[in-house]
Amino acid sequence: MVTAAVIVGNPKPQSRTRDAAERLAAALGARAETIEVSELGHGLLGFGDPLVREAVARVQEADLVIAASPTFKGTYSGLLKLFLDQFATADGLAGQVAVPFMLGAGPAHALAPELSLKPVLVELGAVCPAQGLYQLDSRYPEDGTLDKYVAAWGAAIQASLGEGRSR
Amino acid sequence: MVTAAVIVGNPKPQSRTRDAAERLAAALGARAETIEVSELGHGLLGFGDPLVREAVARVQEADLVIAASPTFKGTYSGLLKLFLDQFATADGLAGQVAVPFMLGAGPAHALAPELSLKPVLVELGAVCPAQGLYQLDSRYPEDGTLDKYVAAWGAAIQASLGEGRSR
Amino acid sequence: MVTAAVIVGNPKPQSRTRDAAERLAAALGARAETIEVSELGHGLLGFGDPLVREAVARVQEADLVIAASPTFKGTYSGLLKLFLDQFATADGLAGQVAVPFMLGAGPAHALAPELSLKPVLVELGAVCPAQGLYQLDSRYPEDGTLDKYVAAWGAAIQASLGEGRSR
Amino acid sequence: MVTAAVIVGNPKPQSRTRDAAERLAAALGARAETIEVSELGHGLLGFGDPLVREAVARVQEADLVIAASPTFKGTYSGLLKLFLDQFATADGLAGQVAVPFMLGAGPAHALAPELSLKPVLVELGAVCPAQGLYQLDSRYPEDGTLDKYVAAWGAAIQASLGEGRSR
Repeated sequence: MVTAAVIVGNPKPQSRTRDAAERLAAALGARAETIEVSELGHGLLGFGDPLVREAVARVQEADLVIAASPTFKGTYSGLLKLFLDQFATADGLAGQVAVPFMLGAGPAHALAPELSLKPVLVELGAVCPAQGLYQLDSRYPEDGTLDKYVAAWGAAIQASLGEGRSR
Repeated sequence: MVTAAVIVGNPKPQSRTRDAAERLAAALGARAETIEVSELGHGLLGFGDPLVREAVARVQEADLVIAASPTFKGTYSGLLKLFLDQFATADGLAGQVAVPFMLGAGPAHALAPELSLKPVLVELGAVCPAQGLYQLDSRYPEDGTLDKYVAAWGAAIQASLGEGRSR
Repeated sequence: MVTAAVIVGNPKPQSRTRDAAERLAAALGARAETIEVSELGHGLLGFGDPLVREAVARVQEADLVIAASPTFKGTYSGLLKLFLDQFATADGLAGQVAVPFMLGAGPAHALAPELSLKPVLVELGAVCPAQGLYQLDSRYPEDGTLDKYVAAWGAAIQASLGEGRSR
Repeated sequence: MVTAAVIVGNPKPQSRTRDAAERLAAALGARAETIEVSELGHGLLGFGDPLVREAVARVQEADLVIAASPTFKGTYSGLLKLFLDQFATADGLAGQVAVPFMLGAGPAHALAPELSLKPVLVELGAVCPAQGLYQLDSRYPEDGTLDKYVAAWGAAIQASLGEGRSR
């Protein structure tokens, strides 16, 4: 079974960001292992912290990486970026398949996963074959956007995963 | 053999943009069919022109799409966008694998293929598994950037093409 | 009285894009001179066309430039960019105040004026002190977004215009 | 004299990011008060910390805000964003003049201040009349880029500051 590292960049634990990202993992047929970045604590503020290092390693073992963030100031949270800054440029997610995902209060920032979060993941070497996904925090469980997303992009993600697994 | 539609958005025919994009197609193992957007003429300024329609259809038959542009004002040319505007949103390149490619005079705009051209291709439904490629117009034939690019991203492109061909 | 060059990048003349952009000019207290890019014809496809040159010169005489576009493929139209490509990098709009403006069918692309159109204007040397404006094509005349925009950003635009006029 | 809050988003204190940003403040004729985000500690990881709040208030008292970051993964640091997330959307920097500034090891990410950092500042209500500035960390003290920047954009910044000061 495909494994998905779900990186949750919400300062509050057990957030809707986490719930929505885990639903995305399930809809892609993956078993999620969730990393709540907020639980990594102040080691995030520097480099080389053992707890943070171990979380990076766990992400690197997964087939699929879902980088999930609430929308703060029109883009991903500083907390998520703080964790992504811990990965090596070009190599940190090399060959792994990743999906940029954001949850927001309104539709105005729907371009943010594609325009701002995806380029960060790609800079780490991740393969991002699908459009970034943006959902509304008040409506995602029943608005049909997840089904629509998987219908449009699921095959592309699976194709990339197929290659990744064979390495 | 994989076929690549090389869309050249340079107002001047036989440009370095074209040459560099065709080298990219070859390095990816694809047979290039090149569309010089500048040859499509004033039908580009409206919608429904037969010559333009036929060029769109040719692009849609290819396995791989290389969208190639010189760098104008920090991003892709208006000419390239004019042609991309002729494709249907979400469906125009649905399931096709695409690579955003730009050639520039200096290194300052190297983020443009990833941050500005890729999102347009994805909006048309294209699968863009690789980072956007940017090369210097004065040095691309011998600076090693193409080899480096194919080493980093070639496998991801091939994986996506594998899926595309089987449909 | 402040003069505004309203550049309309909609392939169809007399569009809602034009109407909305002229309303924006009026709300900013400016007398609009409108350039319908679609009327410039096939000279846009090359460089040096007299009609296009004259349109560029007219834009350069205005205090304020409103670059207005419908939303095509998540960003500005190729037609608008084709015209902007005719301006000199860094100098083409140097010292002029500009507002990036887009009209769209839905709210999903609301970030596009700020993230994709504004950088092009700035690359031409324009001073863009205000956030890019995005409005819905079905609701802009009465949804209050123009008033809200002018309340938030009008003073910043006026301050920049004050400087511009004194040169 | 104009006061500038120089926000330094480098995890290491006394960085070149700080030095370069303070040079920018001086070149704009401003007296810099520097906030090293790294000194704010783990209160940054939540909301409402008194030390963080006080730093936010200090930024809000300045005429000019220079948001300065090293380039991590092609964009601003998570540390800088963590601090910017503490400001209120639309109001946090309302009416203040801000300059997005990044220092990088190579030229490839030169578009990042304009395309990714500026939109965050604008989302907080800041007036950003100038292009984002990017400099090379190995060459900024003597490569002439600061002088060139001030020549191109200094007047626009001063015009916006003039308005700001009069409120």
